Amino acid sequence: MKNRIYTKQIIENEGNEVLLAGWVASRRDHGKLIFLDIRDKEGIAQAVVSAKNDSAYEASQKVRGEWVVAIKGKVQKRPENLRNPELETGDYEIAVDALTIINEAKTLPFPIDTDGYDISEDLRLKYRYLDLRRPRLGRMLKLRQEYKTEVSNFLRKRGFTCIDTPILTKSTPEGARDFLVPSRMHKGKFYALPQSPQQYKQLLMVAGVEKYFQFARAFRDEDMRGDRLLEFEQLDIEMSFIEQEDVLVLTEELVIFVSEEIFGKKIQEKPFPRLTYMEAQNKYKTDKPDLRADKKDKNVLAYVWVTDFPMFEKKEDGTIGPAHHPFTAIQDKDVKKLDGSKKEMLNIRAKQYDLALNGFEIFGGSIRTH
Amino acid sequence: MKNRIYTKQIIENEGNEVLLAGWVASRRDHGKLIFLDIRDKEGIAQAVVSAKNDSAYEASQKVRGEWVVAIKGKVQKRPENLRNPELETGDYEIAVDALTIINEAKTLPFPIDTDGYDISEDLRLKYRYLDLRRPRLGRMLKLRQEYKTEVSNFLRKRGFTCIDTPILTKSTPEGARDFLVPSRMHKGKFYALPQSPQQYKQLLMVAGVEKYFQFARAFRDEDMRGDRLLEFEQLDIEMSFIEQEDVLVLTEELVIFVSEEIFGKKIQEKPFPRLTYMEAQNKYKTDKPDLRADKKDKNVLAYVWVTDFPMFEKKEDGTIGPAHHPFTAIQDKDVKKLDGSKKEMLNIRAKQYDLALNGFEIFGGSIRTH
Repeated sequence: MKNRIYTKQIIENEGNEVLLAGWVASRRDHGKLIFLDIRDKEGIAQAVVSAKNDSAYEASQKVRGEWVVAIKGKVQKRPENLRNPELETGDYEIAVDALTIINEAKTLPFPIDTDGYDISEDLRLKYRYLDLRRPRLGRMLKLRQEYKTEVSNFLRKRGFTCIDTPILTKSTPEGARDFLVPSRMHKGKFYALPQSPQQYKQLLMVAGVEKYFQFARAFRDEDMRGDRLLEFEQLDIEMSFIEQEDVLVLTEELVIFVSEEIFGKKIQEKPFPRLTYMEAQNKYKTDKPDLRADKKDKNVLAYVWVTDFPMFEKKEDGTIGPAHHPFTAIQDKDVKKLDGSKKEMLNIRAKQYDLALNGFEIFGGSIRTH
Repeated sequence: MKNRIYTKQIIENEGNEVLLAGWVASRRDHGKLIFLDIRDKEGIAQAVVSAKNDSAYEASQKVRGEWVVAIKGKVQKRPENLRNPELETGDYEIAVDALTIINEAKTLPFPIDTDGYDISEDLRLKYRYLDLRRPRLGRMLKLRQEYKTEVSNFLRKRGFTCIDTPILTKSTPEGARDFLVPSRMHKGKFYALPQSPQQYKQLLMVAGVEKYFQFARAFRDEDMRGDRLLEFEQLDIEMSFIEQEDVLVLTEELVIFVSEEIFGKKIQEKPFPRLTYMEAQNKYKTDKPDLRADKKDKNVLAYVWVTDFPMFEKKEDGTIGPAHHPFTAIQDKDVKKLDGSKKEMLNIRAKQYDLALNGFEIFGGSIRTH
């Protein structure tokens, strides 16, 4: 569509003839004047159609919410008393010369000019392509892009390389069940979808990459509940020639940057407090304590490191096995406890750490045996 | 490792005691002096061990290629006649005070200080984690990251939002076979891995995103041959309220930027020449002609647009079906040919276009019916 401008550009176009295209966010019929709010990806602008303009007026009598239209008209300042300070374009409107209906729309299953919290999630997901028209969700999509861009820049500046590892891969020993993909060319054999890029990133360290990151797609064939998903994305990082403290410092710096600069939140305590696993268990009966002083303030984030996780745990069948995964390194001073006695085994601590936020585990890591 | 610096930083550390860690790229024994080239992710630096330093000298007699070591020592200028202008750090070396062997290594299956072109691809892929130590391949990984970063910035500046669509999805009608993933929770049902994010990106247009891009992972269960892969990544773009010319202009701008600015290549003809499908077939007997004037010059790229692809083609069974996919729009002036007669059907042109580079199709697109 030649010379089309976005709604938010009308404020730089007073007096100009412009072309807009988008969705009818609302329509108000005032008799001799019909007002249309036109929504596009950049916002909303008001268009006004006069009864003096026969063909545009006739079309604007037909249009309904979410119809797709194109309008041509002159940008003018709204009368002082009709300005809308809540709209970026609220001081202006378009006096419509021509209105073209590009597509009609059925009545929506729910309103999309609200925040949507009151609508059932099932219904919102069923009509996801309509729910995403909600300005709040449009902002989320853009915020997610901003987050990924800024995190990438943060890590690239510190010498990390983003490398995307394969999805069709071999099974890895993680906590959940693999999704399997039958191979047509190798009858009876299967690919596995990765629960994490664990093996690939360790091979990248062998390859000398030293500092790697990836927004990694992960798949876990679990029963969906609470915070479990079949498919999700996680920031994945690996480094060579480093110690636990290096990981904690880098992660804390990144998390502070993301929390404050991108999401505009307040952090309750900096540097983040640190608890050992035993301290957390003794004091809070959990390894992801919620340390918020005021649990009602949605803008405050209480981060806490939990370190010194146990290397082994008693499994359901009474045997002793790795609590996390078997590649985790044992703490130097606990190596001598590897004498085979059950009691000492359970006292061995790993170079493993989690970061908890308001009672949720948001980051976990460990030093690998090498 | 506290206070470790990278090899390339030695040039700012003349006279300082430094700590380096990395792989032994080469070892030259000159009797009373042993020279080690230490490689890390940033490059190579020369270390020199004197026989006067008993313990370091003993260790350096043991080490072999690709052993992992840490060295401590003082950075000094090399004697004038021993400088190496081909190495970024070639004016300096480290006089080693201490050498720690972190890990030993077996003899390599192939050399990794060459470009590797002479080694069989099977062998290189078998030892991919060693082959990637080759400086040429390390540069490729970084170039790929730079390419993705710059393309993202290019598109974000023009109002595009990067949105990652699901991998566990439904089957889509593309040219190849889907990979299927059996569902454990819904017995007898399958997920499909996407051949392209076609359906999702069209839904994003319905959702009002208007300008979307993604480095999309795609899966095609094809017999591996030539330019076919089971899994690959492609830049995926979709726009609303646009015409074919808008896509051609944006793509050409992006491709010129990538070719010249990121890969440092020369483009034979700008703006890119354009041929219709019929012209290409008549003149070059192919829809992806190689227009290079000099096919030996590896730095010259000859791009050519091929437009006006046929909408329908005769299938193997004699019936007439879509040549590409059924969502492609028909050219306005050809709509009247939709009268059902077979001959006219085959003359209907689609709003579909490809970009060919040196005889390969590198980009394809179409306007969707809407």
